[in-house]
Amino acid sequence: MFTTQLTEAAQRIEAQFATVLAGLEQVPIVQGMGYATEGGKRLRGFLVLESARLHGIGPDRAIWPASAIEALHAYSLVHDDLPCMDDDDLRRGRPTVHVKWDDGTAVLVGDALHSLAFELVARPETGPAPVRADLALSLAQAAGARGMVLGQALDMAAETADAPLTLAQITALQAGKTGALIEWAACAGARLAEADTTPLSRYAQALGLAFQIADDILDVEGDATKAGKRLQKDAEAGKATFVSLLGLAAAKRRASELVEQACAALDPYGTGAETLREAAQFVIARDN
Amino acid sequence: MFTTQLTEAAQRIEAQFATVLAGLEQVPIVQGMGYATEGGKRLRGFLVLESARLHGIGPDRAIWPASAIEALHAYSLVHDDLPCMDDDDLRRGRPTVHVKWDDGTAVLVGDALHSLAFELVARPETGPAPVRADLALSLAQAAGARGMVLGQALDMAAETADAPLTLAQITALQAGKTGALIEWAACAGARLAEADTTPLSRYAQALGLAFQIADDILDVEGDATKAGKRLQKDAEAGKATFVSLLGLAAAKRRASELVEQACAALDPYGTGAETLREAAQFVIARDN
Repeated sequence: MFTTQLTEAAQRIEAQFATVLAGLEQVPIVQGMGYATEGGKRLRGFLVLESARLHGIGPDRAIWPASAIEALHAYSLVHDDLPCMDDDDLRRGRPTVHVKWDDGTAVLVGDALHSLAFELVARPETGPAPVRADLALSLAQAAGARGMVLGQALDMAAETADAPLTLAQITALQAGKTGALIEWAACAGARLAEADTTPLSRYAQALGLAFQIADDILDVEGDATKAGKRLQKDAEAGKATFVSLLGLAAAKRRASELVEQACAALDPYGTGAETLREAAQFVIARDN
Repeated sequence: MFTTQLTEAAQRIEAQFATVLAGLEQVPIVQGMGYATEGGKRLRGFLVLESARLHGIGPDRAIWPASAIEALHAYSLVHDDLPCMDDDDLRRGRPTVHVKWDDGTAVLVGDALHSLAFELVARPETGPAPVRADLALSLAQAAGARGMVLGQALDMAAETADAPLTLAQITALQAGKTGALIEWAACAGARLAEADTTPLSRYAQALGLAFQIADDILDVEGDATKAGKRLQKDAEAGKATFVSLLGLAAAKRRASELVEQACAALDPYGTGAETLREAAQFVIARDN
């Protein structure tokens, strides 16, 4: 069952961060690091643990890359929420790191979590050296200027652009901004097993786009209390979104088609991948 | 000859960044990434190349971790110069990234260079998988909350502390802030060769501390034009430094002793390590 597995993944990751951060208690910003990694859906960490299970890799190894991707995701949120970036005060229903502490602390907390992510994938517990080297390289590529940071840079550039983005441009932007880490997370299980990442990669590309369309729908239709963050931001800012470009009904249809594509990509895994299929359904049905 | 080797290292690293960044020409922040990696002494990159040479590893492999440590160092400067951190307008004789562009660009440029550093060490060109996994793990530890970010966090905490730091506290702060990356750079050659890092680690610990004492001396006695950055900052801010705690004459003596210790640590390498010994002398004689 997906919801059981998601809850279990969240608990494992929570416990892992508690252990990892306990070793850093002398560090002035460790509270901020802990705060930034608390809460959230843990979808990326779940994808690592579940894709690993699909390849016969247990949580004792998979918890390391699962925590790594959550640390990396948390760093990106802390920096993205800064006043000089998206300027958000609320995240996961609580004040953002720069509001609770200050901007300098938020920069450093993000930087510390960024390095921590690479420490976690490269640790001996993750597996044999070829696996660790491959996870570190692929994570760096997913996080960097061809992946997540590219998406963020395109997003920043769009704010001062003369015309709203086209559908192709928004799709490229989101493939970087949210897609790259989701794809890395889903492929991590295959990487841990030194197996072919193609089916999981296809699954994740459809899932990542569906995730973003769902986010745009949530931004229009959602309840800010449940979402735990400010909504209707894009409309206020006059930003093009999947909803503004496609319309609400077509955006919902497109998200459903993408979920079907994501599920079909898992055919090589047969019924073993049922939880990942349920995860794809969840992504477009969630309220946060 | 050290100066020849340093110049050659700088040229190799410059060329390597040109190649790496040419592959990112579609990225909106690529100009900022290039700008941030230009100039500088390239001491850390030199230490990688030279410690590699000492272990029979040529620049074709060593250039990858050499560029990685320079990318990581550049990211730390870009973030450290932000208004919410040290708030510096001048770096390497030019406007800092957030002055030339804006704060948001500076955050993203730093983040992109941070991930790039891990991509560069983990690339297949760096060597066999155990070497790449070891380089990634040790770099993450040197850069993170037990290394460089710890030093920066202690530095930030010191600004609001009631009393100036003690000598022991400043030594711990600097061991993180500048020492950790210098040590990683000097040990990288041994890691590339899967050899014992102990002698290079001892060399680098003495060198790193000498480097920081020299920085404090430069802050008092230096010429801002040659240094390419604002000086007398620490005295203005009423910050404790090695010079304020030891006095100028004793700080110079301490730096000289540390350089002798650094040179002695290289005894196992015999005359092969002469360039690294010259590098240690350079560190306390430099004017930038």
